[in-house]
Amino acid sequence: MAEKDHALLPSEPNVICLAGGVGGAKLADGLAQILPPEQLTIIVNTGDDFKHLGLTVCPDLDTVMYTVGGVANTQTGWGREGESWITIGEIERLGGPAWFGLGDLDLATHLLRSSLLAEGRNLTVVTQHLCRQYGIETAVLPMSNQPAPTHIITAEGSLPFQEWFVKERWQPVVRSVQFPENVIASAQVTRALETADIVLIAPSNPFVSIDPILNVYPIREMLMDLPRAVVAVSPIVGGKALKGPAAKMMAEMDMPVTATAVAGYYGQLIDGFVIDNQDEAQAADMDCFTLVTDTIMGSREDRVRLARETLDLAVRIAAAGENG
Amino acid sequence: MAEKDHALLPSEPNVICLAGGVGGAKLADGLAQILPPEQLTIIVNTGDDFKHLGLTVCPDLDTVMYTVGGVANTQTGWGREGESWITIGEIERLGGPAWFGLGDLDLATHLLRSSLLAEGRNLTVVTQHLCRQYGIETAVLPMSNQPAPTHIITAEGSLPFQEWFVKERWQPVVRSVQFPENVIASAQVTRALETADIVLIAPSNPFVSIDPILNVYPIREMLMDLPRAVVAVSPIVGGKALKGPAAKMMAEMDMPVTATAVAGYYGQLIDGFVIDNQDEAQAADMDCFTLVTDTIMGSREDRVRLARETLDLAVRIAAAGENG
Repeated sequence: MAEKDHALLPSEPNVICLAGGVGGAKLADGLAQILPPEQLTIIVNTGDDFKHLGLTVCPDLDTVMYTVGGVANTQTGWGREGESWITIGEIERLGGPAWFGLGDLDLATHLLRSSLLAEGRNLTVVTQHLCRQYGIETAVLPMSNQPAPTHIITAEGSLPFQEWFVKERWQPVVRSVQFPENVIASAQVTRALETADIVLIAPSNPFVSIDPILNVYPIREMLMDLPRAVVAVSPIVGGKALKGPAAKMMAEMDMPVTATAVAGYYGQLIDGFVIDNQDEAQAADMDCFTLVTDTIMGSREDRVRLARETLDLAVRIAAAGENG
Repeated sequence: MAEKDHALLPSEPNVICLAGGVGGAKLADGLAQILPPEQLTIIVNTGDDFKHLGLTVCPDLDTVMYTVGGVANTQTGWGREGESWITIGEIERLGGPAWFGLGDLDLATHLLRSSLLAEGRNLTVVTQHLCRQYGIETAVLPMSNQPAPTHIITAEGSLPFQEWFVKERWQPVVRSVQFPENVIASAQVTRALETADIVLIAPSNPFVSIDPILNVYPIREMLMDLPRAVVAVSPIVGGKALKGPAAKMMAEMDMPVTATAVAGYYGQLIDGFVIDNQDEAQAADMDCFTLVTDTIMGSREDRVRLARETLDLAVRIAAAGENG
């Protein structure tokens, strides 16, 4: 956190949450349950969006939408509760691509989104429309209206994100992650950042969920300057990722698989870091404010508790800034 | 039928069937059951194709494909047997358009077709691919690779075909039917017509199923000159259409609702006409060869019987031409 003006933190601070998929969606849901809609904006990674069967599929946006909307599959963490797979089964029978699991309920979202986009609306407006249908009042914003496809540079060559993540089950060894240049944030994202008091980085994958957001101009720049506190929650617990390839990627990119390494990776961007009780010993190594707590969000109550604790840390940091 | 050279009709004549939706699909299925694939080409109306939810939907092609492929819903005559409606129900719940019934199995066809078209393949190739998946060896050809949307000019203005047919349940009074200009047949359609000995016009709606095909250049011109016999099956039985708006349209366009009027409408194009037993009295009024039989295709056996009888009439007409 750079020098800030020391006006008092408002009693109802504006909060932004940067989120990727499952873990990000859970923290975002916790925040949506404790903050009124006008105080919270969720900015979501769209680097793993892709075209499939002619449809625009936005996996992280949908995971956030379904989770905050209370219709997510709580077993898988992604997709819809009570999902069925009739259409994709028939597509497979017809010799079409079935490697990406599109459920019948989920398909409704993709069809509606794709047709609204085809009519000329941008992704922000379309997402707002869909969120309203799912009963979500909190602003859920794609990081950009431009496509910003993430590519994974593997030992076997460059792969579009979903081909690496789903088709290859994130097995090819990762050398680096590549983001497109010249992607610009939407007006709604920029406006939210301009008035943000606190930014929380959800326990999403730093390399393929959070970095794609930070790479969108001028999100990283605004995050360095504007909010009074930026606090991240560690996606690494006890040397493992709760879900997905974060730990495997860290090992392959020659990083220690620790919460400390994640904090170090975020570096000057963050003012505070939330780590799990299992990693309590690492708190002393951190260069920023820390909170040690239970970061595993098994239940919806866990999401609310972690959201509240993370928010409280950020508020304390912001208040300390006022006094510093 | 214009003057033809009087070479002998081959013992294995090349047969073309022009077909629209339900009635056309049934006769086409009957023909496909009695003729080897190399002797039969089914040319299908695509004038009622439309874009819906971003997908390219081809109702008549699909009805023919599902019927000949043995997976059609025998209750409705359109759509798939054992269909479910999960996605479209969710689209409706999300405030999207649900007036066109896209079943979950049916959606697989539309998604696969749309994505193959988006990859740059033409509708003929895509249809061939889908037919193969449905186990169909007979050539099922869209009349053209170009979009050729039919419009219905109603007392209330011009409507795209599906909006009139499905959304408005064909209730607005029809003044005329409008086809786009400059639509050209595919190479496969032209090639099939060049070598056709017999053309059968299925008992489809003359105005919105058969006319769109005849309007595609140079199908009408080739039909007037090339085949040895063109035989149509009346879609009007006992003053009514078995299905759909043909009878209503005839009344609204000031035509008598009779089989005779349909034969008169096809005029010089046809050499023979098949009418139902109920309309036997009209046979004397016809200007062409006639066959009076049971034209109602209730069972799959009925389809085969009517296909055989219609084909036999065409063969007799062609043979008479040789001797004439």
